[in-house]
Amino acid sequence: MTFDPRPLGVFDSGVGGLTVVREIRRQLPNESIIYLGDTARVPYGNKSAETVVRFAREDTRFLNERGVKAVIIACNTASAHALHPLQQEFALPVFGVIEPGIKAALRETSTGRIGIIGTTGTIASGAYQHAIRQARPDAFILAAPTPLLVPLVEEAWLDHPATRLILEDYLRPFLQARIDTLVLACTHYPLLREAIATVTGPSVRLVDSASSCAAELQHALRNGHLQPAPGPGRVELFLTDLPRGFSALADRFLGGGNGEPKLALLT
Amino acid sequence: MTFDPRPLGVFDSGVGGLTVVREIRRQLPNESIIYLGDTARVPYGNKSAETVVRFAREDTRFLNERGVKAVIIACNTASAHALHPLQQEFALPVFGVIEPGIKAALRETSTGRIGIIGTTGTIASGAYQHAIRQARPDAFILAAPTPLLVPLVEEAWLDHPATRLILEDYLRPFLQARIDTLVLACTHYPLLREAIATVTGPSVRLVDSASSCAAELQHALRNGHLQPAPGPGRVELFLTDLPRGFSALADRFLGGGNGEPKLALLT
Repeated sequence: MTFDPRPLGVFDSGVGGLTVVREIRRQLPNESIIYLGDTARVPYGNKSAETVVRFAREDTRFLNERGVKAVIIACNTASAHALHPLQQEFALPVFGVIEPGIKAALRETSTGRIGIIGTTGTIASGAYQHAIRQARPDAFILAAPTPLLVPLVEEAWLDHPATRLILEDYLRPFLQARIDTLVLACTHYPLLREAIATVTGPSVRLVDSASSCAAELQHALRNGHLQPAPGPGRVELFLTDLPRGFSALADRFLGGGNGEPKLALLT
Repeated sequence: MTFDPRPLGVFDSGVGGLTVVREIRRQLPNESIIYLGDTARVPYGNKSAETVVRFAREDTRFLNERGVKAVIIACNTASAHALHPLQQEFALPVFGVIEPGIKAALRETSTGRIGIIGTTGTIASGAYQHAIRQARPDAFILAAPTPLLVPLVEEAWLDHPATRLILEDYLRPFLQARIDTLVLACTHYPLLREAIATVTGPSVRLVDSASSCAAELQHALRNGHLQPAPGPGRVELFLTDLPRGFSALADRFLGGGNGEPKLALLT
């Protein structure tokens, strides 16, 4: 077997992508990771496709210059808008979080009634709806933006009564439509998984981008599309702004002991 | 009287500063305004002082190049971090929203028990607390960040039950501390004024940055620090990203008929 010790490059608009890093660490502990969080310009979810593509290009350039062997877009909004442009512009493999999430949803659903929640940008892009429709033309698809969930996660109000009220409001149409699978199409949402499950109940399966994306990478390593690292892997964190309380936030996403993040100024 | 037809330059991290534009229009209808909303990098409230100063400098440079006669920082976070650096770096008058709000609060309070709510950045800067303490050493000051209010305003959930629950949670310590004046230290918050007043009741006076800031400008025009425009004034809107649904958002802040915003790419 040929090894490739170069790290995987992972970027996100902020810290939500750390849920993807956590899953890669769990499933592929030999791989090193360079993570870039664009905390100076977070969030991407309510910004236009043009602006998100521009930001994603700068993020990818930063990782590419650091010699990564592949780039993972650990952000649904950036995956929706920028996956194809980045795959065309850069000479290294680029993975998004949308396709793996869709495959998982199609595997999980029995009735073909699938719900999708995400940022305004992700939902408006139609990326999930279109790909599910392609793969399964008879699927019933209900998609809605749930823009307050990111700020609630960043506030750590994971079991606040207001969070419950907001989730009930957002999820009511999905329950009325009797979906059996709900795609959490935003890398922040895995932190609300329990709160969401309490509202949806046991009859709805939850699919998240983070674990599906890590499984996709594992598959790429197995089939030779990527060379595995000899291990053990390390994580290096870069942020475009060093926000107050970042350590606490990183620990919430990633577990402790991640070292100090470094400041990255994009140009 | 000498006239100066040049516009006033107003900037904010996004659209919240339009509450300031609305008040300037109301109090100074002769003045033209160039507004810059940094919607590509919104919000500023959870970002570090260094990053906010860098963004504010780029915003001011953009307005300065368009020949404004003064710059108004219509954003509490940017006023807290960047007012003094900008006043030193640029050769034109620069106004913030904090000093006017503080003067209004000191005028309104009877008991000297003052509350302040704003973004994490504004509250952590200590700008309000310090200035109130300087002016009135015996004041009782309670300040707390209320970061979910900006996303709630941008979602237009102004009278949603969850908004009521969140406001009750945020404002409980202020009511327990028997404040008689509450400073709404964020330019988004005037849109929640009624919802906040419902929770605080009639014994708490609400002070907002927008009307205090416009009154301060009127004062500067009266005392000759600025020359008034011959009128009637016009508004020109620039944004660094053109978000979906901007027109509806602008109408909510500013009233209708504002024309199409133009895209500004900062360098």
